[in-house]
Amino acid sequence: MNRLRIAEIFGPTIQGEGAVIGVPTVFVRAGGCDYRCSWCDSLHAVDSKFRHDWKMMSAADIFAEVEHLSGGVPLAVSLSGGNPAIQDFSPLIALGHAKGYRFVMETQGSVAQSWFSDLSTLILSPKPPSSGETVDWAKFDDCINQAKQAETVMKIVIFDEADYDWARNVAARYPDLPLYLQPGNHTPPPPEAEDAEIDMDGIMHRYEWLIDKTLGDHWYTPTILPQLHVLVWGNKRGV
Amino acid sequence: MNRLRIAEIFGPTIQGEGAVIGVPTVFVRAGGCDYRCSWCDSLHAVDSKFRHDWKMMSAADIFAEVEHLSGGVPLAVSLSGGNPAIQDFSPLIALGHAKGYRFVMETQGSVAQSWFSDLSTLILSPKPPSSGETVDWAKFDDCINQAKQAETVMKIVIFDEADYDWARNVAARYPDLPLYLQPGNHTPPPPEAEDAEIDMDGIMHRYEWLIDKTLGDHWYTPTILPQLHVLVWGNKRGV
Repeated sequence: MNRLRIAEIFGPTIQGEGAVIGVPTVFVRAGGCDYRCSWCDSLHAVDSKFRHDWKMMSAADIFAEVEHLSGGVPLAVSLSGGNPAIQDFSPLIALGHAKGYRFVMETQGSVAQSWFSDLSTLILSPKPPSSGETVDWAKFDDCINQAKQAETVMKIVIFDEADYDWARNVAARYPDLPLYLQPGNHTPPPPEAEDAEIDMDGIMHRYEWLIDKTLGDHWYTPTILPQLHVLVWGNKRGV
Repeated sequence: MNRLRIAEIFGPTIQGEGAVIGVPTVFVRAGGCDYRCSWCDSLHAVDSKFRHDWKMMSAADIFAEVEHLSGGVPLAVSLSGGNPAIQDFSPLIALGHAKGYRFVMETQGSVAQSWFSDLSTLILSPKPPSSGETVDWAKFDDCINQAKQAETVMKIVIFDEADYDWARNVAARYPDLPLYLQPGNHTPPPPEAEDAEIDMDGIMHRYEWLIDKTLGDHWYTPTILPQLHVLVWGNKRGV
Protein backbone atom coordinates (compact mmCIF):
# COMPACT_ATOMS: atom_id res chain seq x y z
CA MET A 1 0.00 0.00 0.00
CA ASN A 2 1.22 3.50 -0.85
CA ARG A 3 2.47 5.52 2.08
CA LEU A 4 1.72 9.16 2.81
CA ARG A 5 3.81 11.94 4.36
CA ILE A 6 1.99 12.98 7.55
CA ALA A 7 3.16 15.91 9.70
CA GLU A 8 0.70 15.37 12.55
CA ILE A 9 -2.60 13.78 13.50
CA PHE A 10 -4.49 15.33 16.40
CA GLY A 11 -7.88 15.81 17.93
CA PRO A 12 -10.72 15.55 18.41
CA THR A 13 -11.00 19.29 18.75
CA ILE A 14 -13.23 21.81 17.05
CA GLN A 15 -12.59 23.08 13.56
CA GLY A 16 -11.50 26.66 14.17
CA GLU A 17 -12.29 28.36 10.89
CA GLY A 18 -14.32 28.49 7.72
CA ALA A 19 -17.40 26.65 6.55
CA VAL A 20 -17.40 24.00 9.28
CA ILE A 21 -16.30 26.20 12.17
CA GLY A 22 -17.10 24.66 15.55
CA VAL A 23 -17.51 21.14 14.18
CA PRO A 24 -15.80 18.33 16.17
CA THR A 25 -12.89 17.20 14.03
CA VAL A 26 -9.78 15.05 13.95
CA PHE A 27 -7.04 16.68 11.89
CA VAL A 28 -4.74 14.77 9.56
CA ARG A 29 -2.08 17.25 8.52
CA ALA A 30 -0.17 16.19 5.43
CA GLY A 31 3.50 17.07 5.01
CA GLY A 32 4.65 18.87 1.88
CA CYS A 33 3.37 21.76 -0.18
CA ASP A 34 3.73 23.14 -3.69
CA TYR A 35 3.39 26.69 -2.30
CA ARG A 36 5.45 28.69 0.16
CA CYS A 37 3.18 31.48 1.34
CA SER A 38 5.03 34.35 3.00
CA TRP A 39 2.80 34.21 6.06
CA CYS A 40 2.31 30.43 6.26
CA ASP A 41 1.12 29.38 9.73
CA SER A 42 1.99 25.71 9.22
CA LEU A 43 5.61 25.80 8.04
CA HIS A 44 6.36 22.69 10.07
CA ALA A 45 4.17 20.83 7.55
CA VAL A 46 5.38 22.77 4.51
CA ASP A 47 9.11 23.39 4.59
CA SER A 48 10.91 20.23 3.52
CA LYS A 49 13.65 20.92 6.03
CA PHE A 50 11.17 19.53 8.57
CA ARG A 51 10.55 16.39 6.52
CA HIS A 52 12.41 14.22 9.01
CA ASP A 53 9.69 15.03 11.53
CA TRP A 54 7.04 13.71 9.14
CA LYS A 55 5.94 10.09 9.31
CA MET A 56 5.48 7.81 6.32
CA MET A 57 2.15 6.17 7.06
CA SER A 58 -0.16 3.85 5.17
CA ALA A 59 -3.85 4.71 4.93
CA ALA A 60 -4.49 1.87 7.40
CA ASP A 61 -1.97 3.36 9.87
CA ILE A 62 -3.56 6.79 9.58
CA PHE A 63 -7.08 5.52 9.97
CA ALA A 64 -6.09 3.40 12.98
CA GLU A 65 -4.85 6.59 14.65
CA VAL A 66 -8.03 8.50 13.71
CA GLU A 67 -10.16 5.70 15.15
CA HIS A 68 -8.06 5.61 18.31
CA LEU A 69 -8.32 9.37 18.86
CA SER A 70 -12.05 9.45 18.21
CA GLY A 71 -12.78 6.42 20.37
CA GLY A 72 -14.17 4.65 17.31
CA VAL A 73 -17.07 7.10 17.07
CA PRO A 74 -17.41 8.61 13.56
CA LEU A 75 -16.82 12.32 13.10
CA ALA A 76 -15.38 14.77 10.60
CA VAL A 77 -11.77 14.25 9.55
CA SER A 78 -10.03 17.34 8.20
CA LEU A 79 -7.31 16.73 5.62
CA SER A 80 -5.02 19.74 5.83
CA GLY A 81 -1.36 20.51 5.33
CA GLY A 82 0.74 21.56 3.63
CA ASN A 83 -1.27 20.79 0.54
CA PRO A 84 -3.00 17.43 1.01
CA ALA A 85 -3.96 17.38 -2.68
CA ILE A 86 -0.43 16.49 -3.76
CA GLN A 87 -0.83 13.01 -2.24
CA ASP A 88 -3.45 10.32 -2.77
CA PHE A 89 -5.89 10.26 0.14
CA SER A 90 -8.50 8.12 -1.62
CA PRO A 91 -7.58 4.89 0.23
CA LEU A 92 -7.92 6.69 3.61
CA ILE A 93 -11.27 8.14 2.61
CA ALA A 94 -12.51 4.70 1.56
CA LEU A 95 -11.47 3.20 4.92
CA GLY A 96 -13.19 6.05 6.77
CA HIS A 97 -16.41 5.90 4.77
CA ALA A 98 -16.76 2.22 5.60
CA LYS A 99 -16.94 3.20 9.28
CA GLY A 100 -19.13 6.30 8.89
CA TYR A 101 -16.42 8.98 9.03
CA ARG A 102 -16.65 11.95 6.67
CA PHE A 103 -13.83 13.98 5.18
CA VAL A 104 -13.31 17.71 4.77
CA MET A 105 -10.30 18.96 2.86
CA GLU A 106 -8.66 22.34 2.59
CA THR A 107 -6.37 23.07 -0.33
CA GLN A 108 -5.24 26.11 -2.28
CA GLY A 109 -6.65 24.63 -5.48
CA SER A 110 -3.38 24.14 -7.35
CA VAL A 111 -3.70 20.37 -7.87
CA ALA A 112 -6.94 18.58 -8.80
CA GLN A 113 -7.69 14.97 -7.90
CA SER A 114 -10.58 12.74 -8.94
CA TRP A 115 -11.16 11.74 -5.30
CA PHE A 116 -12.24 15.29 -4.37
CA SER A 117 -15.73 14.02 -5.19
CA ASP A 118 -15.51 11.65 -2.19
CA LEU A 119 -15.19 14.56 0.24
CA SER A 120 -18.17 15.92 2.13
CA THR A 121 -16.73 19.45 1.88
CA LEU A 122 -13.95 20.82 -0.28
CA ILE A 123 -12.60 24.16 0.92
CA LEU A 124 -10.68 25.93 -1.81
CA SER A 125 -8.44 28.63 -0.43
CA PRO A 126 -6.84 30.58 -3.28
CA LYS A 127 -3.90 32.58 -1.96
CA PRO A 128 -4.08 36.40 -2.25
CA PRO A 129 -1.21 38.67 -3.40
CA SER A 130 0.28 39.07 0.10
CA SER A 131 1.16 35.36 0.05
CA GLY A 132 3.68 35.92 -2.75
CA GLU A 133 2.06 33.09 -4.70
CA THR A 134 0.13 33.32 -7.98
CA VAL A 135 -3.04 31.35 -8.60
CA ASP A 136 -3.29 29.20 -11.73
CA TRP A 137 -6.99 29.62 -12.40
CA ALA A 138 -7.18 26.77 -14.92
CA LYS A 139 -5.97 24.39 -12.19
CA PHE A 140 -8.37 26.00 -9.73
CA ASP A 141 -11.27 25.38 -12.11
CA ASP A 142 -10.14 21.75 -12.46
CA CYS A 143 -10.49 21.39 -8.69
CA ILE A 144 -14.06 22.72 -8.80
CA ASN A 145 -14.92 20.35 -11.62
CA GLN A 146 -13.47 17.33 -9.81
CA ALA A 147 -15.42 18.10 -6.64
CA LYS A 148 -18.72 17.25 -8.36
CA GLN A 149 -21.33 16.55 -5.64
CA ALA A 150 -19.01 17.48 -2.76
CA GLU A 151 -20.02 20.74 -1.11
CA THR A 152 -17.48 23.22 -2.47
CA VAL A 153 -16.74 26.54 -0.81
CA MET A 154 -14.07 29.19 -1.09
CA LYS A 155 -12.06 30.74 1.75
CA ILE A 156 -9.81 33.75 1.28
CA VAL A 157 -7.37 35.00 3.89
CA ILE A 158 -7.06 38.81 3.90
CA PHE A 159 -4.01 40.66 5.16
CA ASP A 160 -4.34 44.06 3.51
CA GLU A 161 -6.25 46.27 1.07
CA ALA A 162 -4.70 44.61 -1.96
CA ASP A 163 -5.86 41.19 -0.75
CA TYR A 164 -9.32 42.58 -0.16
CA ASP A 165 -9.58 44.06 -3.66
CA TRP A 166 -8.33 40.78 -5.09
CA ALA A 167 -10.95 38.85 -3.09
CA ARG A 168 -13.71 41.02 -4.56
CA ASN A 169 -12.55 40.15 -8.07
CA VAL A 170 -12.30 36.45 -7.26
CA ALA A 171 -15.78 36.51 -5.71
CA ALA A 172 -17.15 38.08 -8.91
CA ARG A 173 -15.53 35.27 -10.89
CA TYR A 174 -17.13 32.54 -8.74
CA PRO A 175 -20.55 33.89 -7.73
CA ASP A 176 -21.91 30.41 -7.03
CA LEU A 177 -19.26 29.41 -4.48
CA PRO A 178 -20.11 30.33 -0.88
CA LEU A 179 -17.29 32.62 0.26
CA TYR A 180 -15.61 32.88 3.68
CA LEU A 181 -13.28 35.78 4.47
CA GLN A 182 -10.74 35.38 7.24
CA PRO A 183 -8.27 37.93 8.62
CA GLY A 184 -4.67 36.76 8.50
CA ASN A 185 -2.60 35.96 11.57
CA HIS A 186 0.32 38.38 11.20
CA THR A 187 2.12 36.67 14.10
CA PRO A 188 2.14 33.05 12.91
CA PRO A 189 4.06 30.51 14.96
CA PRO A 190 7.65 29.92 13.93
CA PRO A 191 7.92 26.23 13.03
CA GLU A 192 10.54 25.58 15.71
CA ALA A 193 8.58 27.13 18.56
CA GLU A 194 4.96 26.24 18.96
CA ASP A 195 2.92 28.34 21.34
CA ALA A 196 5.08 31.38 20.54
CA GLU A 197 3.78 34.78 21.53
CA ILE A 198 0.85 36.04 19.53
CA ASP A 199 -0.51 39.55 19.05
CA MET A 200 -4.09 38.89 20.13
CA ASP A 201 -5.10 42.56 20.18
CA GLY A 202 -3.76 42.98 16.68
CA ILE A 203 -5.61 39.88 15.50
CA MET A 204 -8.86 41.22 16.97
CA HIS A 205 -8.31 44.60 15.34
CA ARG A 206 -7.68 42.96 11.97
CA TYR A 207 -10.93 41.07 12.32
CA GLU A 208 -12.82 44.28 13.14
CA TRP A 209 -11.10 46.05 10.24
CA LEU A 210 -12.19 43.30 7.85
CA ILE A 211 -15.78 43.39 9.12
CA ASP A 212 -15.95 47.19 8.87
CA LYS A 213 -14.44 47.27 5.41
CA THR A 214 -16.64 44.53 3.97
CA LEU A 215 -19.87 45.81 5.48
CA GLY A 216 -18.94 49.42 4.73
CA ASP A 217 -18.81 48.43 1.06
CA HIS A 218 -22.26 46.82 1.40
CA TRP A 219 -20.63 43.55 0.42
CA TYR A 220 -22.88 41.14 2.24
CA THR A 221 -22.33 37.81 0.49
CA PRO A 222 -19.17 36.66 2.34
CA THR A 223 -19.27 35.09 5.76
CA ILE A 224 -16.57 36.77 7.88
CA LEU A 225 -14.94 34.60 10.52
CA PRO A 226 -11.81 34.69 12.67
CA GLN A 227 -9.63 31.70 13.50
CA LEU A 228 -11.36 30.54 16.68
CA HIS A 229 -8.56 28.17 17.64
CA VAL A 230 -6.14 31.13 17.65
CA LEU A 231 -8.49 33.14 19.88
CA VAL A 232 -8.80 30.22 22.30
CA TRP A 233 -5.37 28.61 22.17
CA GLY A 234 -3.06 31.18 20.54
CA ASN A 235 -0.38 29.59 18.39
CA LYS A 236 -0.37 26.35 20.34
CA ARG A 237 -0.14 23.31 18.10
CA GLY A 238 -2.17 20.09 18.41
CA VAL A 239 -5.39 21.55 19.83
CA MET B 1 -51.29 48.56 9.89
CA ASN B 2 -50.48 46.73 13.10
CA ARG B 3 -47.56 48.14 15.03
CA LEU B 4 -44.77 46.17 16.70
CA ARG B 5 -42.79 46.74 19.88
CA ILE B 6 -39.17 47.17 18.82
CA ALA B 7 -36.33 47.53 21.36
CA GLU B 8 -33.58 48.30 18.82
CA ILE B 9 -32.59 48.01 15.18
CA PHE B 10 -28.87 47.96 14.41
CA GLY B 11 -26.27 46.81 11.93
CA PRO B 12 -25.10 45.72 9.53
CA THR B 13 -22.71 43.69 11.63
CA ILE B 14 -21.90 40.01 11.68
CA GLN B 15 -24.10 37.45 13.34
CA GLY B 16 -22.07 36.43 16.38
CA GLU B 17 -23.41 32.98 17.19
CA GLY B 18 -25.09 29.82 16.03
CA ALA B 19 -25.93 28.45 12.62
CA VAL B 20 -25.27 31.64 10.66
CA ILE B 21 -22.22 32.83 12.60
CA GLY B 22 -20.19 35.39 10.66
CA VAL B 23 -23.02 36.27 8.26
CA PRO B 24 -23.59 40.00 7.60
CA THR B 25 -26.83 40.86 9.36
CA VAL B 26 -29.12 43.69 10.40
CA PHE B 27 -30.75 42.96 13.76
CA VAL B 28 -34.36 43.80 14.57
CA ARG B 29 -34.71 43.21 18.28
CA ALA B 30 -38.32 42.88 19.40
CA GLY B 31 -39.41 44.11 22.82
CA GLY B 32 -41.22 41.76 25.17
CA CYS B 33 -40.81 38.16 26.24
CA ASP B 34 -42.89 35.37 27.72
CA TYR B 35 -39.78 34.09 29.56
CA ARG B 36 -37.50 35.66 32.15
CA CYS B 37 -34.31 33.61 32.06
CA SER B 38 -32.11 34.05 35.11
CA TRP B 39 -29.06 34.86 32.97
CA CYS B 40 -30.80 36.84 30.20
CA ASP B 41 -28.30 38.95 28.27
CA SER B 42 -30.99 41.15 26.68
CA LEU B 43 -33.06 42.30 29.65
CA HIS B 44 -33.46 45.74 28.04
CA ALA B 45 -35.65 43.99 25.46
CA VAL B 46 -37.35 41.64 27.92
CA ASP B 47 -38.22 43.37 31.18
CA SER B 48 -41.37 45.42 30.67
CA LYS B 49 -40.01 48.11 32.97
CA PHE B 50 -37.96 49.16 29.91
CA ARG B 51 -41.03 49.25 27.65
CA HIS B 52 -40.91 53.06 27.46
CA ASP B 53 -37.60 52.72 25.62
CA TRP B 54 -39.25 50.49 23.00
CA LYS B 55 -40.70 52.02 19.87
CA MET B 56 -44.06 51.15 18.39
CA MET B 57 -43.28 50.73 14.71
CA SER B 58 -45.21 49.59 11.67
CA ALA B 59 -43.67 46.96 9.39
CA ALA B 60 -43.08 49.75 6.85
CA ASP B 61 -41.23 51.85 9.47
CA ILE B 62 -39.06 48.90 10.45
CA PHE B 63 -38.25 47.94 6.88
CA ALA B 64 -37.42 51.55 6.00
CA GLU B 65 -34.84 51.51 8.79
CA VAL B 66 -33.43 48.14 7.64
CA GLU B 67 -33.12 49.45 4.08
CA HIS B 68 -31.45 52.63 5.33
CA LEU B 69 -28.91 50.75 7.44
CA SER B 70 -28.10 48.26 4.67
CA GLY B 71 -27.85 50.92 1.96
CA GLY B 72 -30.68 49.23 0.11
CA VAL B 73 -28.55 46.14 -0.55
CA PRO B 74 -30.30 42.90 0.50
CA LEU B 75 -28.85 40.87 3.34
CA ALA B 76 -29.93 38.71 6.27
CA VAL B 77 -32.26 40.27 8.82
CA SER B 78 -32.21 38.66 12.25
CA LEU B 79 -35.43 38.83 14.23
CA SER B 80 -34.43 38.52 17.87
CA GLY B 81 -35.65 39.76 21.20
CA GLY B 82 -37.12 39.25 23.67
CA ASN B 83 -39.20 36.63 21.97
CA PRO B 84 -40.07 37.87 18.46
CA ALA B 85 -42.60 35.05 18.07
CA ILE B 86 -45.13 36.77 20.35
CA GLN B 87 -45.70 39.45 17.69
CA ASP B 88 -46.68 39.20 14.03
CA PHE B 89 -43.64 39.75 11.82
CA SER B 90 -45.25 38.41 8.64
CA PRO B 91 -45.89 41.89 7.12
CA LEU B 92 -42.23 42.85 7.64
CA ILE B 93 -41.06 39.58 6.08
CA ALA B 94 -43.30 40.16 3.06
CA LEU B 95 -41.89 43.67 2.57
CA GLY B 96 -38.35 42.33 2.84
CA HIS B 97 -38.86 39.41 0.49
CA ALA B 98 -40.11 41.79 -2.20
CA LYS B 99 -36.67 43.48 -2.10
CA GLY B 100 -34.56 40.32 -1.79
CA TYR B 101 -33.93 40.38 1.98
CA ARG B 102 -34.05 37.11 3.91
CA PHE B 103 -35.05 36.56 7.53
CA VAL B 104 -33.53 34.51 10.31
CA MET B 105 -35.34 34.24 13.62
CA GLU B 106 -34.29 33.07 17.04
CA THR B 107 -36.90 32.07 19.56
CA GLN B 108 -37.13 29.77 22.56
CA GLY B 109 -39.92 27.81 20.88
CA SER B 110 -42.73 28.66 23.27
CA VAL B 111 -45.08 30.26 20.70
CA ALA B 112 -45.66 28.91 17.17
CA GLN B 113 -46.67 31.09 14.22
CA SER B 114 -47.67 30.10 10.70
CA TRP B 115 -45.22 32.66 9.26
CA PHE B 116 -42.23 30.66 10.56
CA SER B 117 -42.36 28.97 7.15
CA ASP B 118 -41.41 32.31 5.53
CA LEU B 119 -38.08 32.38 7.36
CA SER B 120 -34.88 31.21 5.72
CA THR B 121 -33.64 29.87 9.07
CA LEU B 122 -35.51 29.25 12.32
CA ILE B 123 -33.23 28.88 15.33
CA LEU B 124 -35.03 27.21 18.20
CA SER B 125 -33.27 27.80 21.48
CA PRO B 126 -34.93 25.78 24.25
CA LYS B 127 -33.84 27.08 27.62
CA PRO B 128 -31.95 24.69 29.93
CA PRO B 129 -32.56 24.24 33.68
CA SER B 130 -30.16 27.04 34.72
CA SER B 131 -32.52 29.54 33.07
CA GLY B 132 -35.22 28.86 35.65
CA GLU B 133 -37.71 28.31 32.82
CA THR B 134 -39.45 25.06 31.83
CA VAL B 135 -39.92 24.05 28.21
CA ASP B 136 -43.40 23.14 26.97
CA TRP B 137 -42.43 20.47 24.45
CA ALA B 138 -45.84 20.37 22.78
CA LYS B 139 -45.43 24.06 21.95
CA PHE B 140 -41.87 23.44 20.85
CA ASP B 141 -43.04 20.70 18.48
CA ASP B 142 -45.66 23.12 17.09
CA CYS B 143 -42.83 25.50 16.20
CA ILE B 144 -40.98 22.76 14.31
CA ASN B 145 -44.14 21.84 12.43
CA GLN B 146 -44.89 25.44 11.46
CA ALA B 147 -41.37 25.95 10.11
CA LYS B 148 -42.05 23.56 7.21
CA GLN B 149 -39.44 24.25 4.50
CA ALA B 150 -37.50 26.81 6.56
CA GLU B 151 -34.13 25.48 7.67
CA THR B 152 -34.69 24.62 11.33
CA VAL B 153 -31.86 24.22 13.82
CA MET B 154 -31.54 24.03 17.58
CA LYS B 155 -29.21 26.02 19.81
CA ILE B 156 -28.71 25.28 23.48
CA VAL B 157 -26.85 27.54 25.88
CA ILE B 158 -24.89 25.60 28.51
CA PHE B 159 -23.95 27.02 31.90
CA ASP B 160 -23.29 23.90 33.95
CA GLU B 161 -23.30 20.12 34.14
CA ALA B 162 -27.07 19.97 34.60
CA ASP B 163 -27.59 22.01 31.43
CA TYR B 164 -25.20 19.73 29.57
CA ASP B 165 -27.01 16.56 30.67
CA TRP B 166 -30.31 18.16 29.72
CA ALA B 167 -28.92 19.06 26.27
CA ARG B 168 -27.94 15.44 25.68
CA ASN B 169 -31.51 14.35 26.39
CA VAL B 170 -32.97 17.05 24.16
CA ALA B 171 -30.57 16.10 21.36
CA ALA B 172 -31.71 12.48 21.63
CA ARG B 173 -35.31 13.66 21.30
CA TYR B 174 -34.57 15.67 18.13
CA PRO B 175 -31.91 13.70 16.25
CA ASP B 176 -32.80 15.36 12.93
CA LEU B 177 -32.28 18.96 14.07
CA PRO B 178 -28.72 20.25 13.63
CA LEU B 179 -27.57 21.22 17.13
CA TYR B 180 -25.38 24.13 18.23
CA LEU B 181 -23.99 24.28 21.76
CA GLN B 182 -22.93 27.62 23.18
CA PRO B 183 -21.34 28.42 26.55
CA GLY B 184 -23.29 30.94 28.58
CA ASN B 185 -22.06 34.44 29.35
CA HIS B 186 -22.03 34.44 33.16
CA THR B 187 -21.35 38.19 33.18
CA PRO B 188 -24.22 39.46 31.02
CA PRO B 189 -24.69 43.21 30.67
CA PRO B 190 -27.03 44.83 33.19
CA PRO B 191 -29.81 46.47 31.16
CA GLU B 192 -28.97 49.93 32.49
CA ALA B 193 -25.26 49.81 31.67
CA GLU B 194 -24.21 48.60 28.28
CA ASP B 195 -20.55 47.84 27.81
CA ALA B 196 -20.27 46.79 31.46
CA GLU B 197 -17.23 44.82 32.49
CA ILE B 198 -17.06 41.29 31.24
CA ASP B 199 -15.06 38.29 32.46
CA MET B 200 -13.38 37.41 29.16
CA ASP B 201 -11.00 34.85 30.68
CA GLY B 202 -13.93 33.15 32.36
CA ILE B 203 -15.88 33.12 29.10
CA MET B 204 -12.95 31.53 27.29
CA HIS B 205 -12.55 28.93 30.02
CA ARG B 206 -16.23 28.07 29.82
CA TYR B 207 -15.89 27.56 26.08
CA GLU B 208 -12.88 25.28 26.58
CA TRP B 209 -14.74 23.41 29.31
CA LEU B 210 -17.70 22.82 26.98
CA ILE B 211 -15.45 21.63 24.16
CA ASP B 212 -13.51 19.28 26.46
CA LYS B 213 -16.66 17.87 28.03
CA THR B 214 -18.50 17.29 24.75
CA LEU B 215 -15.56 15.78 22.90
CA GLY B 216 -14.49 13.81 25.98
CA ASP B 217 -17.88 12.12 25.85
CA HIS B 218 -17.32 11.34 22.15
CA TRP B 219 -20.39 13.44 21.44
CA TYR B 220 -19.54 14.71 17.99
CA THR B 221 -22.88 15.75 16.49
CA PRO B 222 -23.15 19.27 17.99
CA THR B 223 -21.32 22.24 16.57
CA ILE B 224 -19.71 24.10 19.50
CA LEU B 225 -19.41 27.85 19.11
CA PRO B 226 -18.78 30.85 21.36
CA GLN B 227 -20.50 34.22 21.08
CA LEU B 228 -18.08 35.93 18.67
CA HIS B 229 -19.58 39.37 19.24
CA VAL B 230 -18.81 39.04 22.95
CA LEU B 231 -15.21 38.07 22.19
CA VAL B 232 -14.82 41.04 19.86
CA TRP B 233 -16.95 43.73 21.50
CA GLY B 234 -17.58 42.52 25.06
CA ASN B 235 -21.01 43.50 26.32
CA LYS B 236 -21.28 46.55 24.08
CA ARG B 237 -24.72 46.94 22.56
CA GLY B 238 -25.55 47.80 18.95
CA VAL B 239 -22.53 46.17 17.28
